[in-house]
Amino acid sequence: MEKYVDLIKVIQNNFNRLSKGQKLIAEFIMNNYDRAAFMTAATLGETVGVSESTVVRFANTLGYDGYRELQKELQELIKNKLTTVQRISLSKDFTDYENALKLVVKKDMDNIEKTLNEIDYHAFQRAVEITLKADNVFVLGLRSSSFLAGYLGFYLNFLLSNVKVVTSGPSDVFEQLLKATDEDVIIGISYPRYSKRTLEALDYGKEKGCKIIGITDSLISPAAQYADTTLIASSNMLSFVDSLVAPMSLINAFIIALGTEKKNDITAYFEDLEKIWKKHNVYNTNNKNNK
Amino acid sequence: MEKYVDLIKVIQNNFNRLSKGQKLIAEFIMNNYDRAAFMTAATLGETVGVSESTVVRFANTLGYDGYRELQKELQELIKNKLTTVQRISLSKDFTDYENALKLVVKKDMDNIEKTLNEIDYHAFQRAVEITLKADNVFVLGLRSSSFLAGYLGFYLNFLLSNVKVVTSGPSDVFEQLLKATDEDVIIGISYPRYSKRTLEALDYGKEKGCKIIGITDSLISPAAQYADTTLIASSNMLSFVDSLVAPMSLINAFIIALGTEKKNDITAYFEDLEKIWKKHNVYNTNNKNNK
Amino acid sequence: MEKYVDLIKVIQNNFNRLSKGQKLIAEFIMNNYDRAAFMTAATLGETVGVSESTVVRFANTLGYDGYRELQKELQELIKNKLTTVQRISLSKDFTDYENALKLVVKKDMDNIEKTLNEIDYHAFQRAVEITLKADNVFVLGLRSSSFLAGYLGFYLNFLLSNVKVVTSGPSDVFEQLLKATDEDVIIGISYPRYSKRTLEALDYGKEKGCKIIGITDSLISPAAQYADTTLIASSNMLSFVDSLVAPMSLINAFIIALGTEKKNDITAYFEDLEKIWKKHNVYNTNNKNNK
Amino acid sequence: MEKYVDLIKVIQNNFNRLSKGQKLIAEFIMNNYDRAAFMTAATLGETVGVSESTVVRFANTLGYDGYRELQKELQELIKNKLTTVQRISLSKDFTDYENALKLVVKKDMDNIEKTLNEIDYHAFQRAVEITLKADNVFVLGLRSSSFLAGYLGFYLNFLLSNVKVVTSGPSDVFEQLLKATDEDVIIGISYPRYSKRTLEALDYGKEKGCKIIGITDSLISPAAQYADTTLIASSNMLSFVDSLVAPMSLINAFIIALGTEKKNDITAYFEDLEKIWKKHNVYNTNNKNNK
Repeated sequence: MEKYVDLIKVIQNNFNRLSKGQKLIAEFIMNNYDRAAFMTAATLGETVGVSESTVVRFANTLGYDGYRELQKELQELIKNKLTTVQRISLSKDFTDYENALKLVVKKDMDNIEKTLNEIDYHAFQRAVEITLKADNVFVLGLRSSSFLAGYLGFYLNFLLSNVKVVTSGPSDVFEQLLKATDEDVIIGISYPRYSKRTLEALDYGKEKGCKIIGITDSLISPAAQYADTTLIASSNMLSFVDSLVAPMSLINAFIIALGTEKKNDITAYFEDLEKIWKKHNVYNTNNKNNK
Repeated sequence: MEKYVDLIKVIQNNFNRLSKGQKLIAEFIMNNYDRAAFMTAATLGETVGVSESTVVRFANTLGYDGYRELQKELQELIKNKLTTVQRISLSKDFTDYENALKLVVKKDMDNIEKTLNEIDYHAFQRAVEITLKADNVFVLGLRSSSFLAGYLGFYLNFLLSNVKVVTSGPSDVFEQLLKATDEDVIIGISYPRYSKRTLEALDYGKEKGCKIIGITDSLISPAAQYADTTLIASSNMLSFVDSLVAPMSLINAFIIALGTEKKNDITAYFEDLEKIWKKHNVYNTNNKNNK
Repeated sequence: MEKYVDLIKVIQNNFNRLSKGQKLIAEFIMNNYDRAAFMTAATLGETVGVSESTVVRFANTLGYDGYRELQKELQELIKNKLTTVQRISLSKDFTDYENALKLVVKKDMDNIEKTLNEIDYHAFQRAVEITLKADNVFVLGLRSSSFLAGYLGFYLNFLLSNVKVVTSGPSDVFEQLLKATDEDVIIGISYPRYSKRTLEALDYGKEKGCKIIGITDSLISPAAQYADTTLIASSNMLSFVDSLVAPMSLINAFIIALGTEKKNDITAYFEDLEKIWKKHNVYNTNNKNNK
Repeated sequence: MEKYVDLIKVIQNNFNRLSKGQKLIAEFIMNNYDRAAFMTAATLGETVGVSESTVVRFANTLGYDGYRELQKELQELIKNKLTTVQRISLSKDFTDYENALKLVVKKDMDNIEKTLNEIDYHAFQRAVEITLKADNVFVLGLRSSSFLAGYLGFYLNFLLSNVKVVTSGPSDVFEQLLKATDEDVIIGISYPRYSKRTLEALDYGKEKGCKIIGITDSLISPAAQYADTTLIASSNMLSFVDSLVAPMSLINAFIIALGTEKKNDITAYFEDLEKIWKKHNVYNTNNKNNK
């Protein structure tokens, strides 16, 4: 484990020896290690305003044979290794809340944009088709991903029968997948630091022959190793928080795409529900507050 | 209720009589009623590429005295009145998944940008201060907002003692707020169609003298009526889905701002947790997948 | 509502005029109104050690035409009408914990015994058969009954596919039953004061043609009105607590009866799970504590 | 592990060699190993209708030095070792549902009676006092015990501030106990096969100096090792089900004892809630079903 932590230390220890351009790269990496880890030398250079060859020399200065090698270490660092304590210590100190808010929200926007630019439409289409055909749809997510799993399950329940959200509860995830078969699909949502139990559950489902759709942050994510189809949306590592804004946007698109195929069904279902909601007074219909 | 639904019908019935520029406005409103409802005549004109006076004439053609009057009706329509069935019927038919994904994700980006542009920093700062000072922090959200409430509660639990997520469960929301006092704060998350029970719970908390922070979509939201401080982030109405991407980004910023005030505490807490997580093997530390 | 509360008041107001034997009845009713409500005059007399005719005269003294009329009012009182505040005021003051414990536990034993004596085996058998044949099994319970529903669902999940616990959550109960059909069964658990939403959900399921198994406290319970088959186990009203001990025992028997029909299946499932549990170290296997 | 399983095999292998009286003992142990494990030779003899010395000879015949040694092995067997598959294979085949129901319910009654006979009133009183004095009350239970923990938390929430149910969820149990201090109490509910995570959480709480009340099945339970005060109520092992009927009855008594100390407070709270419940129509008040 020490090796990976060293990368940040190595940068810090060598900081004074770096050229002005290299310092820009160093600062960018320390503040945005999660994004930097997936940039090519060219993109990284462009982003901080230096040439690609400056990026390569930067890697050499730190003792790497090339940028590739540095990047690989950065990815390792990010994926499994960085503890929350280390992430907190790397996070910026905000002098005021305005800056905090701007920085966080802008990073979220960047992530959504990146998701849009890099999405694999064929994978997206396959994911929709697999889900529509499955006997049972298991939506799996633990820890902070459990809220996305719950959100996705909440909406899928309007579209499909036999949707089950698989998450921590009285029954463990294996018991919840006990009856899964090769006619079923598991939609596994997994983000760094990748809950071990999520990966074990995907492994268990895989053994049972389930189709697996991964919603995760990169093709090298451990969750992607189990998936037949992987949908990529970056999370945003902010100090001790993993922003799941881009994954949520991707999930919205996924629900809407499924809904398009089921438009008549869901209209009928919601006509049924609107009557019930009205009868039992679920939603606000009072105007007094708006006057 | 009929009056508001009529607005869309009125537009549809008069569509053929409209000028070319007015038709652009009509189409934009029917596809983006949730955003249009909060645009000035000038912004609306600019967005669809017509003059402000064309927008005003459009309102007149439909029988309104001015754009203001039309807009007000649009806001009513959006807030409480549009049933899910109506929203589904207004939603676009996607010819392919690529378009669905682009449209959804772009709308989410627009919403985040709007949140960033329109945020009230003083309200944000007050919200942070109130939360830090409170004896107990109740995070309230029902229906799709329950996932945001859970997500916010998940992270606040690292920062603060006595955080309680108040949501539907064996105990109703009133029982969960039974012991709340004027030293406590309720962070109420409420989005259209505004769950009635959420508003009732805010009313109950208000009576008990609790401070109330509203996270909602506009200052005219019924939830804002109860709030001492309101943080605005738009939801994104997509057919039967309410995208909560922008509110999630705002919530991230809120957590990070609180975390900045507690940096030393949370470092200590996470040092404690890292040991426990390592001991009990919570996170993936296996490299085999990356090789 | 006032009428029913008056019964207790009427007893209290007339107490001094009562004969010695009648006073025993009055005291028993005030301390055990929930059990008294379902006793015949003969049983009530026997329980407190007076003759049946003393019980009838007691009813006359209070102004009722006969014991039947008094009993009917007592049942009304108990079923829906007695508020928790009234129940607390009727409850005994314990001079020491030993008495509290003895009284509570003995009342629970009496309830279980009563359940055993009064169970309808044909109904029990029908309930097992309906459940085994159903496409989907919905286990419905709100408020304190939600823990029984969760417990029943936890075990049914080992025996059957497509078991869903329906309870308060992000989706309301109607949404959770949205796809239910006449091939499905709803096992509805409902105890005084009978959550309104549970009854509405049973009504909704009934409309959809679902089979309904009621687990409730008497055949005159409002939940029993919706049920095709009703299993009776008394709850135990203790001040503000509804002891669900007898219903839990009945539920155990129901699970075991279902399990008997599925013995080979569950052996295979648990062989699968035991491997998983061992691999992931779910249960304690450490002897150090026992040495 | 093999050693313990062997006890049952040893009995089965030697069955034909046993005397008539010894066979009765053997059958009783195979059908009621969970109860037999805690019986003295005298009680066991009395229960099956043989002399104490027959029980001792039975132990000798199986190769044990005395009954004590056999009993110790039986306790080990029961506590941690018997897998669910073994329990299913040991469980009776019911020829009809009536027998299933009678057997299950009677075993539950026996367990409650045993709880009542063996309860330590001083421990019970200490548990009440510790709970009343604590700053925060954490109610911990996983797997099937999570329903008891939820049930206890549901009622404690009316009596006490700062009650938190600690169970499997998005946050792990350690995170939920992160802020616990030596002014807090953890009420840990743990039944065979004793969830490992529950024991780890008790260990974590102990390190933080929390008071610990154990609700478990015997003083030799691993959960009891962490407890300052232990309340004993037997669970009832029925094939793959752990009946928690006796623990639920004990928990009722515990709630009622706490409620007695808080009678005025809870009356005020429920007066508040009754108004709210009436206003929002939570409970059934409709008579139509009873007419």
